[in-house]
Amino acid sequence: MMTDQLIIGVDIGGTKCAVCVADTSGNILHRYGEPTGGDDRSPEEILASLSAGVDRLLIENGINRSRLLGAGVSCGGPLDTTTGIIYAPPNLPRWQAVPVKRLIEEHLKVPVRVENDANATALAEWKFGAGIGARNLVFMTMGTGIGGGIIADGRLIHGANDLAGELGHQTVLINGPLCGCGKRGCLEALASGPSIARLAKDSTRQGRNRVVLPMAGGRVEDITARHIVESAKQSDPFALAILEEAGTYMGLGIANIIQILNPEVVILGTIAVHAGDLILEPIRRAVGEYAWKRSADVCRIVPAALEDRAQDLAGIALWLQE
Amino acid sequence: MMTDQLIIGVDIGGTKCAVCVADTSGNILHRYGEPTGGDDRSPEEILASLSAGVDRLLIENGINRSRLLGAGVSCGGPLDTTTGIIYAPPNLPRWQAVPVKRLIEEHLKVPVRVENDANATALAEWKFGAGIGARNLVFMTMGTGIGGGIIADGRLIHGANDLAGELGHQTVLINGPLCGCGKRGCLEALASGPSIARLAKDSTRQGRNRVVLPMAGGRVEDITARHIVESAKQSDPFALAILEEAGTYMGLGIANIIQILNPEVVILGTIAVHAGDLILEPIRRAVGEYAWKRSADVCRIVPAALEDRAQDLAGIALWLQE
Repeated sequence: MMTDQLIIGVDIGGTKCAVCVADTSGNILHRYGEPTGGDDRSPEEILASLSAGVDRLLIENGINRSRLLGAGVSCGGPLDTTTGIIYAPPNLPRWQAVPVKRLIEEHLKVPVRVENDANATALAEWKFGAGIGARNLVFMTMGTGIGGGIIADGRLIHGANDLAGELGHQTVLINGPLCGCGKRGCLEALASGPSIARLAKDSTRQGRNRVVLPMAGGRVEDITARHIVESAKQSDPFALAILEEAGTYMGLGIANIIQILNPEVVILGTIAVHAGDLILEPIRRAVGEYAWKRSADVCRIVPAALEDRAQDLAGIALWLQE
Repeated sequence: MMTDQLIIGVDIGGTKCAVCVADTSGNILHRYGEPTGGDDRSPEEILASLSAGVDRLLIENGINRSRLLGAGVSCGGPLDTTTGIIYAPPNLPRWQAVPVKRLIEEHLKVPVRVENDANATALAEWKFGAGIGARNLVFMTMGTGIGGGIIADGRLIHGANDLAGELGHQTVLINGPLCGCGKRGCLEALASGPSIARLAKDSTRQGRNRVVLPMAGGRVEDITARHIVESAKQSDPFALAILEEAGTYMGLGIANIIQILNPEVVILGTIAVHAGDLILEPIRRAVGEYAWKRSADVCRIVPAALEDRAQDLAGIALWLQE
């Protein structure tokens, strides 16, 4: 790959969007961001504004379009990576069957690839972050939801209709708590940020909480996973026990993934980055209990490395898969 | 691929071995089999005998070695597909680090590929059986154990050290029954042949069994999964309830696989072939409950199609992956 080639990254989020220009080593050279704008703007308006933002970056910096390898769009799913159509992600309810690939290609005159954000972040961590050099890698978000992306034998896995990698919606506890997806006992219902907060709220209402409640201004309903992580860092046994519980379920879910996919690294985002070993240790213990030693021994379980750069690099990495 | 090319298949099982010559369409042209021989023969002796068997097939049928594309060996794991070394499969305890690839290549002078039997059978069902034309396929044995093979986006998945596809050793019931692998609550401990037999034995000892016991000669310890299937075919509610229970766990495990891999077909061997809808219906119901509709709707759950031909075609299919 020629070193003077450049890639456009497009990140479409529920609250903000950004475009960037990067080289093939993942150096972000130029960047432009704007609020998504809720219901104020149509998807077409947002995409036109972002494309215009790219045009400005190219013109202002004297970049010839012939240097562009392509543009990569990272966005919430469901979406179709072949047609590049986005179907109403939960965080973008107005985006009903928007032909993102076609619209941006028409504007920018470069080939466009579209990928769901968990898959694109998996690629970014693989190329630039905690998974460099791996051939079998699993990335899992651990925030509002638990999503995932799978690199198996050196390739991102899509599945029959781009729904591979829904790692948070495996059932880990039969008849467990209701998940946002409508099923019961999903991993996401036991180890995501809102699930950790729910555990904390339930216990607080039963009077078993000392440290966390003041952090939430005394309002039980305002307790978040971040309060629990902060409280655990102060050695609050209540918060530590909640991270232990969530981490154990997370470790069980990861153990299942290890049995199925035999990755050499599992990379965990958000809460694992914030809490570090406070949740990674319970996770690793549970993996040791629920996965085969022969499989677990070859698999590192590590926090994501890209942090704030992940969203910009997600779109870039779509052009660096081969 | 030239149509006059031929492939050698080598099946090494715990009780019997076989070699065959097939064309690239999977037609078995010539075949030779022999008992594995328990502890009587060393792995080297067995491989020499099988290689001599191939030589005889070639000479007797006037086949020029120049027509041979290669040989494919299907065998129990663990094994290393890169080096072609087999490490003590449970059904071949004397096979300690046997360099199968090298030994057969030295003898036959053709390139040899080695694959664990579940993966090789997944390839055979993909190329010749119930998965023809699919790009995302999961094959699961459902016999003494529950093994598996994964074709994702058109390629067999191996993982970091050839342990991908251990689908029967995901945890589906925390603190569930002890599995042969040493863990608790594995899918294999709840839905394999021995697990179905265990459920039947437990219930029989509690006096809840009418039809099955005479089939086992009145001996509780001799009840097998096959007795349960036969009894269920006679509409015995006891046997039907056991298949319902095992099928529900199997469906939950398959639902998890669907969430993770998004296959378009899941192919089930042995018990699913024998019992048909008596177990496939509970499985499909559970998949409907534990997998997303959007993922389950694109996924067929079907019995294996190759039956007795699977073992011969497993080795052949190793040369038809691309």
